Amino acid sequence: MEFDEAEVIRVLAEIFATSHSGVIVGIGDDGAVVQTGNTSVITTDMAVEGTHFNTAWSGAFDIGRKITAANLADVYAMGGTPSYLVVAVTLTGDENLGWISDLAHGIVHEAKSCGAIVVGGDLTRGAIKVIAITAIGKVEKAITRSGAKAGDSIYLSSLPGWSAAGLAMVTNESCDDLEAYAVEQFCAPTVDYSAAAALADAGATSMCDISDALVAQAQQVAAASQVCFSFDPHSFTSHPEFVALNELANKHGIDVWQWIFAGGEDHVFLATGTDLPALCVGKVVAGTGVTGLEMKKAPVTWRHFN
Amino acid sequence: MEFDEAEVIRVLAEIFATSHSGVIVGIGDDGAVVQTGNTSVITTDMAVEGTHFNTAWSGAFDIGRKITAANLADVYAMGGTPSYLVVAVTLTGDENLGWISDLAHGIVHEAKSCGAIVVGGDLTRGAIKVIAITAIGKVEKAITRSGAKAGDSIYLSSLPGWSAAGLAMVTNESCDDLEAYAVEQFCAPTVDYSAAAALADAGATSMCDISDALVAQAQQVAAASQVCFSFDPHSFTSHPEFVALNELANKHGIDVWQWIFAGGEDHVFLATGTDLPALCVGKVVAGTGVTGLEMKKAPVTWRHFN
Repeated sequence: MEFDEAEVIRVLAEIFATSHSGVIVGIGDDGAVVQTGNTSVITTDMAVEGTHFNTAWSGAFDIGRKITAANLADVYAMGGTPSYLVVAVTLTGDENLGWISDLAHGIVHEAKSCGAIVVGGDLTRGAIKVIAITAIGKVEKAITRSGAKAGDSIYLSSLPGWSAAGLAMVTNESCDDLEAYAVEQFCAPTVDYSAAAALADAGATSMCDISDALVAQAQQVAAASQVCFSFDPHSFTSHPEFVALNELANKHGIDVWQWIFAGGEDHVFLATGTDLPALCVGKVVAGTGVTGLEMKKAPVTWRHFN
Repeated sequence: MEFDEAEVIRVLAEIFATSHSGVIVGIGDDGAVVQTGNTSVITTDMAVEGTHFNTAWSGAFDIGRKITAANLADVYAMGGTPSYLVVAVTLTGDENLGWISDLAHGIVHEAKSCGAIVVGGDLTRGAIKVIAITAIGKVEKAITRSGAKAGDSIYLSSLPGWSAAGLAMVTNESCDDLEAYAVEQFCAPTVDYSAAAALADAGATSMCDISDALVAQAQQVAAASQVCFSFDPHSFTSHPEFVALNELANKHGIDVWQWIFAGGEDHVFLATGTDLPALCVGKVVAGTGVTGLEMKKAPVTWRHFN
């Protein structure tokens, strides 16, 4: 161990300190006690070194931000607003206090962007670094994956594919500005949580976060709603970022549709409904499955078995 | 990978399936949506292969039970009752479906014993097995570590030390009945959750779960409450299990007080108050720290840095 355990806990307690009015008992007891609404949304996500993050590619602050973002996005995808987080971390003992502090600051930074706070955690030791976060939020009307109806339009909160593009070039020794942007979207994506809230407010009939790839998650929503998702690939090309993403794909000899449909790890919200404030990319029709994929070959989705 | 991912998820969904009236959206969406009270208790615990469990010592069912018990005990230690669990698991890919299924059954078994249910999770892959569970429960009046008052008595829900005893002999090739009991308490402890509920109902002024060793947690409660915990070692000897634990310690050449005060991993509840339904082991007095330790040398607490 390069660090003193008591010192780590003291530093983490300082970073996570909060005076939130909803917290009755905060960090330092057997559990946190918090005010909740009658209906709560709960999500959990685990990020594992070597699978979800690599310390050679990402700093601790970005790793903290990214795993927190994955959790927060799931709460928004249910039509909720995150309130509280608990964070369980396994460290190897090789980390210095600065790295651990940066990780905590990354978690707090991302949580604060949504008004959420860390109220508890667990710190333990193991052979690899692992971070598990659980988010608890408020929700009045849950927006599930089963509400899409034939006649709805399909919407995306932004253009997916940037994270997959970033993964493809994260090990490049030098990057131009566009490549650097893609790498940033992979290592520490900036998630537009307000877009999900806007989709919910506008009456989305179904919604999900497409972190497991657009095609995979569209299939899940289509199956849960017993409808067919019919994408219109031309609608994607009208997105202001399409030209840049396509240029990047061409430069690297990759089918841009592979990134868009099968990329994964994009915290973009997929919703259905009418006149929603987002990019319309197709129609929900009677039937099953997903049509309108533009890929030159079958999608290879990015999976870490969830 | 020895197993098919879709098959694993299907089996887990079956094992975790529930028809609980509080669940509005269960497993299979971005998050679970559940009914909660105005005040909720939230706890999280992470168990790491090689640190908290060893598949050579424990079967998957017992591993699942043990990590779940640690979480549930924390909810009870706050004076709460657990309602919902989310479970994040990292698997190496070497597990067969039977092992995974046993793990899930162990989690469900322990959760059911308290009326709690699994409402969501995350399944991912990594170099070692890791299980992180978050429990959300109901609580009306939180019982913290800061409420102990001079004049209170100190109570334990049962005799600690059995888990440490079990750890000391878990690798033994043959065990007599007493040793086998200790090993069982280490590998898959049976936690008396009702004892914590009874302590809460009887007006405990402070309470905690002593999974990090009695002496360490008594020090924490004493510090949080700004009092001194004065133990009476003779009171422990009147516990019906003391003779057996002492016999085991003598047989293995170990100071029984080391197990009792510094053992760790016992899900025994430490509480303060008056006329509580548990073993009285001392008095809360003015001052600081902990007195009355009977150990022959300074305690070596069992720590995995939490």
